[in-house]
Amino acid sequence: MMKRVAIGVDIGGTNTAIGVVDPEGNVMVKNSIATPAHGNIEQYISDLAQAINELMESVKLLNNDLEFLGIGIGAPNGNYYSGTIEYAPNLSFKGVVHLIELLRNHFPKMEALALTNDANAAAIGEMVYGGAKDMKNFVMYTLGTGVGSGLVVNGDLVYGHDGFAGECGHTMLIPGGRRCGCGALGHLEAYCSASGMKRTAFELIVQYNATDSLLANKSYNELDAKMIYDAAVKGDKIALEVFEKTGAWLGQGLADTVHYLSPEAIFLFGGPTAAGDFIFKPTKENMEKHLLPIFKEKIKILPSKLKPGDAAIVGASALVWKELDK
Amino acid sequence: MMKRVAIGVDIGGTNTAIGVVDPEGNVMVKNSIATPAHGNIEQYISDLAQAINELMESVKLLNNDLEFLGIGIGAPNGNYYSGTIEYAPNLSFKGVVHLIELLRNHFPKMEALALTNDANAAAIGEMVYGGAKDMKNFVMYTLGTGVGSGLVVNGDLVYGHDGFAGECGHTMLIPGGRRCGCGALGHLEAYCSASGMKRTAFELIVQYNATDSLLANKSYNELDAKMIYDAAVKGDKIALEVFEKTGAWLGQGLADTVHYLSPEAIFLFGGPTAAGDFIFKPTKENMEKHLLPIFKEKIKILPSKLKPGDAAIVGASALVWKELDK
Repeated sequence: MMKRVAIGVDIGGTNTAIGVVDPEGNVMVKNSIATPAHGNIEQYISDLAQAINELMESVKLLNNDLEFLGIGIGAPNGNYYSGTIEYAPNLSFKGVVHLIELLRNHFPKMEALALTNDANAAAIGEMVYGGAKDMKNFVMYTLGTGVGSGLVVNGDLVYGHDGFAGECGHTMLIPGGRRCGCGALGHLEAYCSASGMKRTAFELIVQYNATDSLLANKSYNELDAKMIYDAAVKGDKIALEVFEKTGAWLGQGLADTVHYLSPEAIFLFGGPTAAGDFIFKPTKENMEKHLLPIFKEKIKILPSKLKPGDAAIVGASALVWKELDK
Repeated sequence: MMKRVAIGVDIGGTNTAIGVVDPEGNVMVKNSIATPAHGNIEQYISDLAQAINELMESVKLLNNDLEFLGIGIGAPNGNYYSGTIEYAPNLSFKGVVHLIELLRNHFPKMEALALTNDANAAAIGEMVYGGAKDMKNFVMYTLGTGVGSGLVVNGDLVYGHDGFAGECGHTMLIPGGRRCGCGALGHLEAYCSASGMKRTAFELIVQYNATDSLLANKSYNELDAKMIYDAAVKGDKIALEVFEKTGAWLGQGLADTVHYLSPEAIFLFGGPTAAGDFIFKPTKENMEKHLLPIFKEKIKILPSKLKPGDAAIVGASALVWKELDK
């Protein structure tokens, strides 16, 4: 019997990862090409199509009975409704790029072609393959260089009127606070992302003049969330306080999310979540502190069940299943 | 031909208003009973049922060809899913009250019986009868003693997992700021409600020692949003600054709402909106200032089209049409 599979594509600033994903969310084969700096979208789409075709050929060698149902794509500023990438700051393609339309020329018979941003793709991945299989209302936060989010209401991803809903990383956490990547002051992303944790670490080192901290031997450009975790495990006070403060901030933000959407659970994905209780415990405690009584002790904060390395591909491929569900 | 009508019930802290509403959202007849302090829910439901029956009889005298499709109820902490009112701080009924179940005993043949909170009812009212008839994604903010909100995504009210979504009045505006009615510090409601405006007025009077302000002749318990508006019209500097500050705060909060949900429009309802440009202009300007580039100049801030006096009844009745749509 034919095995139905989906193709997932994750377009990042430097690389584009492509994978063939089975119905259980396992990557069967994967490959990647450079996301070019040349800005020529037609050339890039042509290269991408070729890479996808080659990957389909290669996986057929493993199993000749595959049906390729569609291609799901996660990309920064990817708009589900229009199939376009719009003014993505980290990509070389300018203005509004009609990605799905261009890709359709190369795959005229593919049943589903769909695009969204990476955090939305992760949320759909969690719903299709991961820990949210039985949930109709949940939220996914991706903690990386930035903070992305995907909102699911009544079993559907919330795209909003324009296709760009779920930018919770850019909600106000501390008015007049740290400058965010978007230029505004005080957004959640500036505090709760992996790079926000680094900023917190240096803020604390400065505050305490903490020359004895393990983190005081790293430059600003060297330090990352993993090093903070390693130092916390060794009992480094600065590192431990970074997690406490990050959890306090994230907990405040997640309480707002609960007050907006009353989700069953909030999933956290990304590097900082590898720290386990160091980050989950203070986040949960502080969220509870900020919740209205009607929500207290009801909302789960869970680690994503998507495998870190493949999550972007797997999430993107999940779009295909979601499309076919309609 | 039979005219199909819906009954709307608005349960407030002191009064319960009941109306028969036509398909255009006009109240044909209305009445009210006291929301009792005795805490006996069965007695209250029996009294409410009698009042509804009397109102149906009275409207039949005007038009004998009416079909009563259902009863929609707006109540504080009203839970759509369970038909219960849960721990409403301003009502005498304790714990979880099975309102719909109890009312069903009195109206076994009525097609639709549904309950939600007042802000959600207002949002559905806007969608069924008001300015959001053609919208699938919008948000309603009700500015009164508190701040309520109703979120509409893909044409449906967002109830969330528990039925209590849309508590945007209780999201964080200024960490560590003013005490909110719920006990927390810094919520949007403490700044952007009608009573928040009064607090702002007194804060400014104190700040400037503004003995010459028209508002300096009113006690804290006397002053209301209407007086602030009247003073602003006369050019009172304190009153004008109250609107500027309220708009700045509300604009910040609405930008967060846009980043969450990407709505087509945000509707404002309630006393303070009667001030027109005094409140809409600074709100719009400040929202724009906080929006990510992809959202700028796209989101409308509109006054609700529901008539102030009848809005609660009309909104509640809209629940009935929404139920029958399913």
